[in-house]
Amino acid sequence: MNQTIDKVKKDLSHLEIITDPNQITKLSLDYYHFSPILHKQLQDKRGDIVIRPTTEEEVIQVAQTCVKYKVPITVRGAGTGNYGQCIPLEGGVILDMTKMNQILWLEQGVACVEPGVKMAAFDKLAKQTGWELRMAPSTYRSATIGGFIGGGSVGMGSITYGQLRDRGNLQALRVVTLEDEPCLIELRGDEVQKVNHAYGTNGIITQLEIPLAPAYPWAEIIVIFDDFMQAARFGQGLGESDGIVKKLITVHATSICRYLHQLKDYLPENKHAALVMVSEYDLEAFRDLVHEYNGKISYFKTAEEASHRTSLLEYTWNHTTLHARSIDPSITYLQTFYFTLDKVEHFYDHFGDEVMIHLEFIKFQGKVIPAGLQLFHFTTEERVNEIIRYHEEKGAGIANPHTYLLEGGGRKTIDSPQLNFKKEVDPYSLMNPGKMMIQNNV
Amino acid sequence: MNQTIDKVKKDLSHLEIITDPNQITKLSLDYYHFSPILHKQLQDKRGDIVIRPTTEEEVIQVAQTCVKYKVPITVRGAGTGNYGQCIPLEGGVILDMTKMNQILWLEQGVACVEPGVKMAAFDKLAKQTGWELRMAPSTYRSATIGGFIGGGSVGMGSITYGQLRDRGNLQALRVVTLEDEPCLIELRGDEVQKVNHAYGTNGIITQLEIPLAPAYPWAEIIVIFDDFMQAARFGQGLGESDGIVKKLITVHATSICRYLHQLKDYLPENKHAALVMVSEYDLEAFRDLVHEYNGKISYFKTAEEASHRTSLLEYTWNHTTLHARSIDPSITYLQTFYFTLDKVEHFYDHFGDEVMIHLEFIKFQGKVIPAGLQLFHFTTEERVNEIIRYHEEKGAGIANPHTYLLEGGGRKTIDSPQLNFKKEVDPYSLMNPGKMMIQNNV
Repeated sequence: MNQTIDKVKKDLSHLEIITDPNQITKLSLDYYHFSPILHKQLQDKRGDIVIRPTTEEEVIQVAQTCVKYKVPITVRGAGTGNYGQCIPLEGGVILDMTKMNQILWLEQGVACVEPGVKMAAFDKLAKQTGWELRMAPSTYRSATIGGFIGGGSVGMGSITYGQLRDRGNLQALRVVTLEDEPCLIELRGDEVQKVNHAYGTNGIITQLEIPLAPAYPWAEIIVIFDDFMQAARFGQGLGESDGIVKKLITVHATSICRYLHQLKDYLPENKHAALVMVSEYDLEAFRDLVHEYNGKISYFKTAEEASHRTSLLEYTWNHTTLHARSIDPSITYLQTFYFTLDKVEHFYDHFGDEVMIHLEFIKFQGKVIPAGLQLFHFTTEERVNEIIRYHEEKGAGIANPHTYLLEGGGRKTIDSPQLNFKKEVDPYSLMNPGKMMIQNNV
Repeated sequence: MNQTIDKVKKDLSHLEIITDPNQITKLSLDYYHFSPILHKQLQDKRGDIVIRPTTEEEVIQVAQTCVKYKVPITVRGAGTGNYGQCIPLEGGVILDMTKMNQILWLEQGVACVEPGVKMAAFDKLAKQTGWELRMAPSTYRSATIGGFIGGGSVGMGSITYGQLRDRGNLQALRVVTLEDEPCLIELRGDEVQKVNHAYGTNGIITQLEIPLAPAYPWAEIIVIFDDFMQAARFGQGLGESDGIVKKLITVHATSICRYLHQLKDYLPENKHAALVMVSEYDLEAFRDLVHEYNGKISYFKTAEEASHRTSLLEYTWNHTTLHARSIDPSITYLQTFYFTLDKVEHFYDHFGDEVMIHLEFIKFQGKVIPAGLQLFHFTTEERVNEIIRYHEEKGAGIANPHTYLLEGGGRKTIDSPQLNFKKEVDPYSLMNPGKMMIQNNV
């Protein structure tokens, strides 16, 4: 391999190439260590070199070179994923897209960006025109748009716009293929699903057209409750309040609140909490809703006030897991579609303190459902699988975060259009090899 | 009564008072004649005089005078309702609010208006600031905002924001009471429900604070289908497409399409049609959805093109009934919450051509449901009641449009806060007397 890599380096010597082992280590990994199972499997995986292209033309050159020498290529954004999406299983080239960070155009309702554009930075500009991203993960400040499309699926904004995979939430993208003669393909509309959430196994994304959402001034609020299920019902009720515009509805059981030290002044002992973002224009209605559910507002910041502080976003989604693990590294997590409050209640009662419930309400096929990222102390792989099995037997959907396989997570199968596209654009299976289970078996 | 009315006229001689019988006739009625049952009951009802106040101060003077002489007072906007909401059952003063038409302020996300502001005129101004009304009826061009709040409940926009009664869709209002000393009461948040959709029985609305929606460029589109249920499933599917921003989803069975002569070039024989408004930013996704459901786009106008033509809105909601009745005056209608497509299919099969199905998809408690305004040929009152009963027995909700009683329509009961408020602000039962069933029985 070393000789081959040397040839790649020589052919691409005009590009930014990183060979420092510490840098390579850093740029080979992501937040896979949230999972002890992935930690064991992935901790030693490294790329051989990192290349940082700055233009589409440079990406094509990298593709040509990797095809020429049959070198694996693993694309990454900011590396804020949690399942080793961008960890190279077979070495080779790490393609770091963070320098391809141009906003190509920004219009009413739609923008076209390079994949390395950071989400929060984009929003700062977009908000000046009255728009913002429809969806973003809790790693919003550092995550790239391309990385989110390649490896993400939901986030703040999903309570209104659903999942990234929902038709309309990604309008078009352009990819460079890994064919003998790498070329550019533009995919529009439904076609984008060939590449959406494919962990970079299906072509190198070089441009994305993304729909935007109207930018509201989002008030950030914590509401506390005596009873966990009351907090959960409040979350569902807010989600279903069609007259109240919102962006985030998180509910943490008290067992989770105790890990959020930075918010401890607003999270009294034994209380359960909803962390929400609501349009400032709808606050009167929101307060009436809080009153109906016997909640108490313990933290309230206008959008302007919130902009000077750490956003509540960073205590939701997988940042919750991050905070808990910073206090107790034995903690790991699951990702669950509960679908109904009845199921939430069942699991809450069944597992007690073993599985601490963290809910995120999202739109799922037009309906508001509770999803969640529960926390628990890792004991054995068997116990993790038992917990997953129990959830599935009772009708919850688990997007297993303890596998790096594309089919092991949220998508249980790879649809044939995605697989066919893979065969077309990556005939030598050079792209992020080992991540597609079906590809491994072929 | 005549002598009393003369006293009222004298006391209020400085105001605009209409006494011309033709004008009084016109300003006593609404579109109650869509119902042959209401037609029989209401056709002869007239006010004695019409007063057109221009300020809140003048409204207070009218209230004082009506209380002084115990004269009934019936408030009206543009009179575009369909259940005789503003038809005076016991004569007296008609209070025509159309001259109270000032926009008091118009800010990001919220506006404060007088009740006589016309909806389309308001939107024309609001759109310059990037906002528009969340909801409007098909009588949008002539209807007033106060009239819609007093007598309406849903309309275009309800596929996103639900019903007017949903928390947040009316932020505050100010009413003049009919007490011995009429005074002004401001109601905010949940309190507005005391007056919302109360047919003007609960105080005279003089100001409204209304939440706004981001103004999108709405493309207007007709999609045709071979099969009615396929058109209905498309409507549901579009409603549940969280990544596609929309404002209107109407589905007409072919039996209804034949009454829409002005659209005949786009509604081929034996085809069923969806009339929709979709954000121009989401058109690619929309076209993919049409393709998935095997629909065919027969009419497509950008927002700009649509602005120079009659909006498709005027072939939806109760304008559909208007068009059908202009061709066949024996036609009347129902208003139905079907809740599920299964029920739609059941009624479609059960009634065949007798009950022609017109669906409007709306948000109802966070879910997308099919509602409808079916058309049928009126035969007897008994048959109307049989049809209603059958729907109710099978689990549909009927908001009976053949009654002028508040409790007879969408709201089957008057909640006690509304009744208590009535007792407080209208101790002499002067406001639109006869419209509250419970009041009649007291």
